[in-house]
Formats: sequence, structure tokens, C-alpha cells
Amino acid sequence: MNGAESMLETLINNGIEVCFSNPGTSEMHMVAAIGKSQRMRSILSLFEGVCSGAADGYARMAGKPALTLLHLGPGLSNASANLHNARKAFSPVINLIGDHATYHKRFDAPLNSDVEGLSAPVSHWVKTVSSAADLPADAGKAVQVAMEKPGRIATLIIPADCAWDESVSPVSALPMPDAPLADQGAIDQAAEWLTNGRRTTLMMSHGALTEESLALANQIAQATGAKIMCDTFTPRLARGEGRCDIERLGYFAEQATVQLEDAEQLIMVASKAPVGFFAYPGKPSEFYPESCALHTLSRVEESAVDALRRLVDQIGASGLAPQRLALVKPDLASGELTLESMARAVGHYLLTDTIIVDESATSGAFMPAMTRNSEPHDWLSLTGGSIGYGLPVAIGAAVASPDRKVLCLHGDGGAMYTIQALWTMAREDLDICVVIFANRKYQILQVELARVGAQSMNKQTLDMLDLSNPDIDFVKLSEGMGVRASTATTADEFNQQLATAMKTRGPCLIEAVFD
Amino acid sequence: MNGAESMLETLINNGIEVCFSNPGTSEMHMVAAIGKSQRMRSILSLFEGVCSGAADGYARMAGKPALTLLHLGPGLSNASANLHNARKAFSPVINLIGDHATYHKRFDAPLNSDVEGLSAPVSHWVKTVSSAADLPADAGKAVQVAMEKPGRIATLIIPADCAWDESVSPVSALPMPDAPLADQGAIDQAAEWLTNGRRTTLMMSHGALTEESLALANQIAQATGAKIMCDTFTPRLARGEGRCDIERLGYFAEQATVQLEDAEQLIMVASKAPVGFFAYPGKPSEFYPESCALHTLSRVEESAVDALRRLVDQIGASGLAPQRLALVKPDLASGELTLESMARAVGHYLLTDTIIVDESATSGAFMPAMTRNSEPHDWLSLTGGSIGYGLPVAIGAAVASPDRKVLCLHGDGGAMYTIQALWTMAREDLDICVVIFANRKYQILQVELARVGAQSMNKQTLDMLDLSNPDIDFVKLSEGMGVRASTATTADEFNQQLATAMKTRGPCLIEAVFD
Repeated sequence: MNGAESMLETLINNGIEVCFSNPGTSEMHMVAAIGKSQRMRSILSLFEGVCSGAADGYARMAGKPALTLLHLGPGLSNASANLHNARKAFSPVINLIGDHATYHKRFDAPLNSDVEGLSAPVSHWVKTVSSAADLPADAGKAVQVAMEKPGRIATLIIPADCAWDESVSPVSALPMPDAPLADQGAIDQAAEWLTNGRRTTLMMSHGALTEESLALANQIAQATGAKIMCDTFTPRLARGEGRCDIERLGYFAEQATVQLEDAEQLIMVASKAPVGFFAYPGKPSEFYPESCALHTLSRVEESAVDALRRLVDQIGASGLAPQRLALVKPDLASGELTLESMARAVGHYLLTDTIIVDESATSGAFMPAMTRNSEPHDWLSLTGGSIGYGLPVAIGAAVASPDRKVLCLHGDGGAMYTIQALWTMAREDLDICVVIFANRKYQILQVELARVGAQSMNKQTLDMLDLSNPDIDFVKLSEGMGVRASTATTADEFNQQLATAMKTRGPCLIEAVFD
Repeated sequence: MNGAESMLETLINNGIEVCFSNPGTSEMHMVAAIGKSQRMRSILSLFEGVCSGAADGYARMAGKPALTLLHLGPGLSNASANLHNARKAFSPVINLIGDHATYHKRFDAPLNSDVEGLSAPVSHWVKTVSSAADLPADAGKAVQVAMEKPGRIATLIIPADCAWDESVSPVSALPMPDAPLADQGAIDQAAEWLTNGRRTTLMMSHGALTEESLALANQIAQATGAKIMCDTFTPRLARGEGRCDIERLGYFAEQATVQLEDAEQLIMVASKAPVGFFAYPGKPSEFYPESCALHTLSRVEESAVDALRRLVDQIGASGLAPQRLALVKPDLASGELTLESMARAVGHYLLTDTIIVDESATSGAFMPAMTRNSEPHDWLSLTGGSIGYGLPVAIGAAVASPDRKVLCLHGDGGAMYTIQALWTMAREDLDICVVIFANRKYQILQVELARVGAQSMNKQTLDMLDLSNPDIDFVKLSEGMGVRASTATTADEFNQQLATAMKTRGPCLIEAVFD
């Protein structure tokens, strides 16, 4: 058994089932090992950023890591932007990166680079394997690291000879780490704050946004009058019918500071104190008042549901029935295609258990409101701000949840970063409906240009933020990669196309063209 | 004058004319400064790997750096694979990377990352700007660093407040570094080796591959019987009618070791001792015999033409007329579309001064032979092995050389990594003909799988190297991004489409479908 084969068995023994692959020559023994096995699903992508984004989406839904299989430094580089998003989401991911054979490295062949240096900023743990004999144990360790709470990125750099040399037996199933529990002192202080008469907001994120955690937060709000909010961008949020409502922090400082202007106390649950996505000249970075007191109930790696449950018990709120949202679907609009009409259609046609992957940017303005009382669904958003996460994350979510519809809401500019994802959707026949909001500009940047106080708004400047010369034809791009597609230019066309998409299995794309 | 404006004036004062841009919010003041100026051409791309590849191609043809304008760590990450290629080509490039405002960094907002850590492996020089007042001087230094021979990658990380705060006056034109000259001892030893009766090969790369250097090498070969060879992958090679011939080292060890098996002495000119692109089980990394003696005539940063001229003088070969290639164009083939028929067409229709950007991988097997005696042209190849370099480099070459036709020969798998480049070709109306070799597999990997001795060749393994499910329709992809396109399935169709493309200005794509 060579190193690659023993590594693969080790990974399988420890619960890993899926590998998002874009291999090269130095990974051929790993490819061969996967090919020989019946227990690892390999999903090919045409670009490494699709692999890493898919691993992020998979982890958000499956709660465990997938593999990426990448080709030396450049393969990792192409995966890095979406690893950045995965790192900010605390998604567990295991990167397998092939490298030159140990004895070949010193010749500095063309593909040689500092793979460890490239890996460190996007990984919590990096290990270069020393020998084939070490590889199985290193692979086992990578799974354990990735499974540390709240989820880690483990990167294993595998010189080619460590894969092809004779190795030792695979490692059996290893113990996986549990989430630590919050200190009792943190619970006590939260209970005290919630009952001291000051205006208090619970700021929740990450593991605190499950259906169960939201219900506990709702009991706290009922008992104490606290406001319940979540970060703007969260890995996974349970929404819709039967779930308890939560107010989302606005992206723009102008919104967020108003939402928090009354707060006297902020209690963070798996979250950080809210700050601006960017800085703006002359404006503070913090969204909360200077006088606001801060306390952390549970850190991101701790069990949020445990901390919330103990807090509910302590303040005596466990007898309160959570206020769950009723099903109230928006009516469809007719006529002009607008952001509101599209949001109405999404809210109207949403299926139970739909996974919404949102990279709609400015085009999604009405989506949260119009889906608030729709069928129960999960909402995945862009945690690291690196655009081009949506299509790949949709792949991973669909692979992890084959019985659920995935609806990917995407701006046109952002979609072009990882447009190659469409091919993998077709190849794997994934149940994903992609909606492209084709306003043909980087609308968010045209807004930001004004907001940062940059004064030149002439044609040459705006051309740098414009996508209309030439217009991108997403129907052709989609069909070119094997995904059926259509264009909607009116609300009625969009409604009809979305209705069809939601009731038809398999990948499709709707290009929504509007001003 | 704010930091961005003074930086821009400094760059313009130091000869920088082009910026390949994919900006975000933190770069808005740089966008505004470029918009206000009439002296910086900004070229927008939909993906940062297009920007960095274009800067590489520009540098190879213009001999000076372009800018890339990138958005924080993820923007740099997306640019990194093609920066890797540029670094291996020693192409001068200046990266301008926006980052969070200095005072905002500590909040670790979603887009925060270790930008310096990400930059170091793909840069020769990295500087994070400290203040708006420092920015102009830092920008001037970046140009000087990039212009150090043989060409460097200079990365300037610019916190947003350093761009928007009030700054000082721009820096005027600075002195730029000259290429150092080779030691006389290195010339003397080369002269001695060339006349000691042993079989000697000159291994040339980088700056040694200009028309003038090749003529000097030819005089040496005539005078001494030395063999003249070049590396497999070189940044820019002068070929065709009127140039002196040079033998290219084969990619596969099986070829390369035969080419070098008789060598008793290797003299490197701006090159390294030849080694395998990858290691293979049980095979040596070095392509030359163990007994072969090695000597470096001139290092890559030294002037190759100067060293060759001094060597020619010293061995008394300056009176010999260089043997220049005559114009002998291949005949066209008819019938089945094959690698040979396509190479014949390329050799037949090549225009004087065509720039060939080659990422044809296995599909280009016949290209060198069939273009050897065609019209004079430059040949750009994949120096770092990170695929997806071809389309972006074609953009940069076309921008640097607007009066020359660019012919980009590209494998289908490789083209998908940076397919977004087509949109920029259309937007800028660049004179580029793209030929896609659509064999619908990663053919090189199917070859390599066998060569590395990986034994499993079952369907599941081969599926990981296969692009046929679904077939990619490059005509639709191209049209979807505004580039006219056609499909050729016979030699005659290909001949006719290439003939039209070569005589018609503007971007186009030919999808050549073959087995």
C-alpha cells in the first residue's frame, strides 16, 4: 500500500466522503488511489476556487470537512480566495496539496514555490509531509484539526514521493474533539445584564443561528426585552416558517449604527463586536455607541446552544413558548422587473428546506423581508467578503444535501469570478437554480465610490466599475457549460421561469436583466 | 493632492502607462485618481488572474512593468497563480493592493487577512505603506525594484487611508538600474571550454533569446561546433525567417535526456542546469549526464547579449555570418483535423511579427516544427507551469504591441482557468486570435498518469482527467463574452477560419474539435 492509498483509507476511516478535485501530475497517485476506491466521491472542477468554495458549502451543510485536491502552490493560490471565506465561516476543510518530490524540490523547477508560505494565511494548520510512512498519521491529524470547534482549515502538503512510496497501515477512526462549554461566569454575567434594566442586544453569529438556538434567544427576548440580532454575513442561518425571527445587522454604517444606537449593553454569542466591513473617511469603525458595554456569552468555538440553554434556565425563561414565524408568502408582482418583484417571486416559490446561497450584493435588497415568512429554509452568506463564493458554495451545499433544492442568488459581477462552477453543476446534475442579477455593473462599487468621498465620477472612472461593454450573455455562458438557461426581462417572465425552476430537478440558470 | 493622486503621478513620471484593474471599495480613491488622469490606461478584467497574466504579457513585450490594481488579500490570491508565472519569467510587475485603513485593520473585519504573508511567495519585494506622505516615495521605489534586472515583482500594499489622506508632491523620474555585466572570468572559462575539444552545449533562456543573442550564439556554434539549445519554457523567443535556429529542450525526460546524452560540458546563458519539470519514480531529476561539467557564462540578471558578444570576440568568431533561417512555409493539409494539420495552418498563415502565446500543452506537438521557417515572430511560453496563463498573457502582449497580431494557442482545460479574459479582449478590441484545442480531456494528465507509474486506469480514475461530460462549448462561452467565434472539425474548416482570423483585425476564437 503506497502513501496515497493509506492516506485515503485513513481519511475514509475518519468519515471523509467527498473530494473536490483539480489535480495535476504531482497528484496522480492520489488520483489513482481515489479511482481504485469505491468510498470517496471525487468531484472535478475546472478551477480550484470552485473546489475550495464547494468544500466550504459542503461543510456548512454537512458539519464535517470535504477534501480539496490541489496542484502545488498555484493550485492553492487559485483556491485561496474561497478558503478565505471558509476560514471566516469557520468551515472545516482539508486541503491536500501535491508538491514536488522531496528530492526534487531543491532544483527549483518551474512549478516550485513556497507552498507553506502560501498556505499559512488561509489555514489554521499547515503540515508538509516528510515521508510516505508519516502520511497516514498526518492525514488523521488533519481530520482532527479540521473538526476542532468551531471548524478549522487543515492543509496537508504532500510531496509526490510521499504519495508513491510504500507506506504503513491506515489509521483507524480517531476521537474527534467536542465543543468546549462556556464558563459559568459568562452565563452569570449575561443573566445579570439581562435583568439590570439596561437596553441589551444579543449579537449572534455562527453556531448560534440554528433553529434551536434562535428559539432559546427568543425566550430570552420575551423574558427580558432584549433585542436579538445577527451579523450581516453568517455561515448559515435558519429562517422562515416555524423559526424564530432575528434582526440582521445592516451592511452600511448608516443602517447599522441606527440599529444599535440605543444599545447600552451588547452580549455576543459566537460573534464579535460589530464593526464596519470597510472604513470610511471620518467615520468610526465601531457600529455601537462608545458608551455601550460589551460581554461575550460564548466564544465562537464554544457550544452556543448550551450557553443559551443555561442562560434561559438561569433567568427562568424555559417555560415560555418560542414565538415562531407563521407561513405568509408574498404575492407575486407583475410588469417591470425590479428588485422587489424578484424578491417577491423568491419568497412566493420557495420550497421547504431550500438552501439559499446569497451573493446578490445590492440586488438582494428586498430578499430578506420577502422570504422572512416563507417556507423554512437555510440562508448561507458571504462570510469573508471575497466575491465569487456563491456558485461554488451552492455546489457543496447541493452535494451535502442531495434532497434539498439550492437557490443561488448572485450578482453578475461576482458570478464571473468562479463562473466555471456551472460546468460542475451540470456534470454532477446538482439540484441548483442560479439566479443572476444582471444589472451590468459593479453596483456596490458605484455606491461605495460616492460613500468613501472619492469625488471623480466622470466616465473614465465609472467605466472601471461598469460591465456593459460588452454585455455578458449569461445564457450563452451557462449553455456553454451544459446548464440550461433563460433570460427574464419582465416580472412575469421571471415569475414563470422561477416557478418552473423550483419544481424541476437539476441545474438551471435564470439571467434577470434589469436596470 | 491625496495619496492616491500623488502615487499615480509618481508612477506616470516613471514611465508606467497601463493598469490592469479589478478594484473594490478599498481602492476607490485610486480608481478616482486614475479616472481624473488622462495618462494612465486602465483596463478592467472580471477576474484578478487576468490582470496579473496581462501584466506578465505586457512586460514580456514592452520590457517594463504594468500595474495591477487588486482588492485586499483575496484579490491578490486570485492574481497569484499568474504572478507565479510572471515571477518565473522575471517579468517586471507592480502590484497595487488596497487594504483596510491602518486604524481599521485591528478589528479583523471580514476581508481582513495577512496580505504581506500572501504577497511574499509571489513577490521579490513587498512593502506596506505607512502613511499618505510615504506613498509617492514607496511607489517610486516599486518602479525601481521592478526594473532591477532581470525584472522583479514589486508589491505595494496600500491601506485605504494612505490613499485618501493628504499627501506630498509626486516623485519625479528616478534613475533605473542597468543590467550588470558578466565577470571576465566567466567569459574566459567559456572560451576555454568551447575550444577544449569536448562536446559542449550552450543552454540559453530569458534575455539570451533575442534575435541578436541568437545570432551571436550561432557564430559560436559555427566556430566551435557547440550545440545551441534553449529551455523548454521561455518568456520570449525570437523565431522564424531571418532569425538563427535554436533547439528546444523537450518537456518529457525521455526526450530531454536523449538531447543531452552526449553533452560533456553545459554552458548556461541566463539559464539554469536543465532538470525535470516533475520528478518520476526511479528517474533522476537532472536531464544531463552525471559526468557533464557545468559552467555559467552569464546569470539571468546579467546582460546576455554583452556576454555573448564578448565571447564571440574572444574566440574570434565575429567575422562569421550568422546562418539565418529562410522563409519556407508548410503546405496546408486537407481532410481530418489533426495536430499536424493545425500546425501546418498556423505555419502557413503566420504574419510577420505575430506574437504566439503558447499554452497548447500536448496539442501543440507539431507547432514548433511547422513554424520554424515561417515569418519572423515571437514565441511566449508558460514559464511557471501554472496553467491559465495564455489568454491573459495574450491581452498584455496585445496592449503592449497594438500593431502586431497575437495568436494564442490554448488547450481547452487550461483555457477554463481564466476564461474571463475573453471579455477584456472584446472590451478593448484587442487584435487576438485564440485557438482552443478541444480534445475534451486533460490529455497531459492522462499521459502523466501512466508515466508516474500510477497503475489504476479505470473509468473512475480517468473521469478525474476528462472534460467530456458535458462537452464545453467554447463558441457559446466566447460569444457570451462578446468575442466572435467559430468551430472547426475538419482541416479545411480550420484552415479557412484561421486564414480569415489572421487577416481580420480584432478578437476572435476558433474552437478546434478533434480526438
